[in-house]
Amino acid sequence: MRPVAIIGIGKTPFGAFPDRDLRSLAVEAGEKALNNANVRPGQIESFYLGNFAGPSFAGQNHLAPYVSTALGIEGVPSTRIEAACASSGSAFFHGWAEVAAGINDIVMVVGVEKMTSQSTARVSQILAEAGDCSGEMKAGSTFASLFAMIARRHMYEYGTKKEHLAAVAVKNHANGALNPDAHMRKPITLEQAMKGKPIADPLNIYDCSLISDGAAAVILAPLERAYEFTQKPIRVLGVSQASDYVALDQKADITTFPAVRRAADKAYQMAGVTPQAIEFAEIHDCFTIAEIIAIEDLGFVKKGEGGPFSFEGNTARTGKLPVNTSGGLKSKGHPVGATGVAQLCDLALQMRCEAGERQIPRHSLGLAQNLGGSGATCVVSILGVA
Amino acid sequence: MRPVAIIGIGKTPFGAFPDRDLRSLAVEAGEKALNNANVRPGQIESFYLGNFAGPSFAGQNHLAPYVSTALGIEGVPSTRIEAACASSGSAFFHGWAEVAAGINDIVMVVGVEKMTSQSTARVSQILAEAGDCSGEMKAGSTFASLFAMIARRHMYEYGTKKEHLAAVAVKNHANGALNPDAHMRKPITLEQAMKGKPIADPLNIYDCSLISDGAAAVILAPLERAYEFTQKPIRVLGVSQASDYVALDQKADITTFPAVRRAADKAYQMAGVTPQAIEFAEIHDCFTIAEIIAIEDLGFVKKGEGGPFSFEGNTARTGKLPVNTSGGLKSKGHPVGATGVAQLCDLALQMRCEAGERQIPRHSLGLAQNLGGSGATCVVSILGVA
Repeated sequence: MRPVAIIGIGKTPFGAFPDRDLRSLAVEAGEKALNNANVRPGQIESFYLGNFAGPSFAGQNHLAPYVSTALGIEGVPSTRIEAACASSGSAFFHGWAEVAAGINDIVMVVGVEKMTSQSTARVSQILAEAGDCSGEMKAGSTFASLFAMIARRHMYEYGTKKEHLAAVAVKNHANGALNPDAHMRKPITLEQAMKGKPIADPLNIYDCSLISDGAAAVILAPLERAYEFTQKPIRVLGVSQASDYVALDQKADITTFPAVRRAADKAYQMAGVTPQAIEFAEIHDCFTIAEIIAIEDLGFVKKGEGGPFSFEGNTARTGKLPVNTSGGLKSKGHPVGATGVAQLCDLALQMRCEAGERQIPRHSLGLAQNLGGSGATCVVSILGVA
Repeated sequence: MRPVAIIGIGKTPFGAFPDRDLRSLAVEAGEKALNNANVRPGQIESFYLGNFAGPSFAGQNHLAPYVSTALGIEGVPSTRIEAACASSGSAFFHGWAEVAAGINDIVMVVGVEKMTSQSTARVSQILAEAGDCSGEMKAGSTFASLFAMIARRHMYEYGTKKEHLAAVAVKNHANGALNPDAHMRKPITLEQAMKGKPIADPLNIYDCSLISDGAAAVILAPLERAYEFTQKPIRVLGVSQASDYVALDQKADITTFPAVRRAADKAYQMAGVTPQAIEFAEIHDCFTIAEIIAIEDLGFVKKGEGGPFSFEGNTARTGKLPVNTSGGLKSKGHPVGATGVAQLCDLALQMRCEAGERQIPRHSLGLAQNLGGSGATCVVSILGVA
């Protein structure tokens, strides 16, 4: 396998855009990435689209050529990958593998979701299809209620407190307020975060990520060719995808995600680094408890210490291990299929010192963790300054 | 890239199975392939699921780990690919690439669709989402009406006759009647085929493929390891995926599918063979006209000669180039996401001399062509006796 680099990135703002459709968002992100990489559409040798539920949200399937032809990318393999909220993380994994293996040189990966044209009730129903609809979801669960159970159990096992969850929300809102592309740019206090409207106890509205429209794109190339296109290539040091049961009730322990641990172990090994070497991370905070569990499963802290570690400010922009300087899914927004690639764009912005007001000083080794459903898919990527 | 072999195959019967769900079909095909390859679930290093519209047909998304964990395949990358009716052809292409590139050794590819639990009207609507829903489908088209336009134009340009289309139906029904796993085992006469209930003129009911439930699976390995698992490995000599516009009105000429030509050119080149060397083929006859156009685009006959070539019996089991000895989508059935992998299983059955009553004598080099929508995705695979 040969070294691979990200040579271009592009993102739309995340938000609710009633006058934008799925394709126009994906095309905007893709065109920005093409411009950013100084690549013409005709140079793309393979195209991947990460999308969770375009047919249900937007009434359109067969989405990869639907988007790629609109970008002027013609003839080449054009493949849609669906892996719930990890759809574009998985698309990135497969795009990387294709370049690493020498199958193709210049590969584009786009993630997109257009969610806000549906009612909130319908959005919940569509999202629930990422869980087990023959079991847990049929019984009335939603992802909020599943993650509420996870939070309750984590509290019971490890003494995690509501304040710890709230601290994650406060931190991610603070970061998102500095991100011009974030869906919600509203700093909140710990008191506000503690007193949000209840959703599924112990989770309130501030513990839940947003329903958003948006798209993100990256272009990959062999590292040895990266400087043909950009002065600021970002190296893909490690990337791994892992899987687990879809239904929460099939898991032996709901306070940990085996797919995260598996993907992380392999990504660390590939990159030749330890968790302690990681300088900053974009984490899949679909709910605040998910960020706390992820920093444990990724080996940044011991099991059960994610809550206090977050509460003490270690994951703030000024902390030991800045997490979600973009604002995360909580504040930047969570257009499901776009999230995995957007995380990589956000790591790249920091690594290129293009993160504006939220720029952090140590930014040469970053990790992104993209979770599907309640943990049945996870993709972990480790990027480094080339 | 290293040589790759199919070491195991498995299929469910195709049909309408009101008491079977999507997962049980996929698991049946997967378990048959595991048994056929003498492979344990724990040996599978990567899993691909081709599925078009599980969320719409069956109310379940995040389908790859949903199926793979039920097969006892745990932890490894588990990826769903959607490319309309070419979903599992595309999944096969990506699984092949992974083995060919040396990323993994033992890879399983399953295709599945559960369609018959929806009304025919709803099925048409879901299928239409593989077309351009912002244009042609919004204007009231269905795939039957799009392929009717294609047929009309082909008749106008090349003198193709209704009898030519009907001959394809008669031949595929005759083959399907001999296939114990076919959805419809009913031989028809040319007169019947000419007088079927009109669907979208010039296409009648006998020109259209079936709405079916079903699944199919293959297991891939490097050729050098194939004999560890089977005495009858089938070699993947060439495989290629190509793309084109989703909307028919964006195409310069609707009597040809550029994605088929592109994928075929590359697959022939990879396999080092000419179209004339191919001994038999499984062709994507979603409509009879699609089979006629495919045998032209694949280079078996000159442009415009597909109709007479079929009418004269050349594609019959006893003809020069047997096409769809399985019965094709027309008679075997067309569970959309299963079709691509099922075609490969049907080639393999002939190559192993396991095709029963429909066995043909020349079966050492076969081609499968899997089409998505009205040609926006095509995967062409060439298999040979190892």
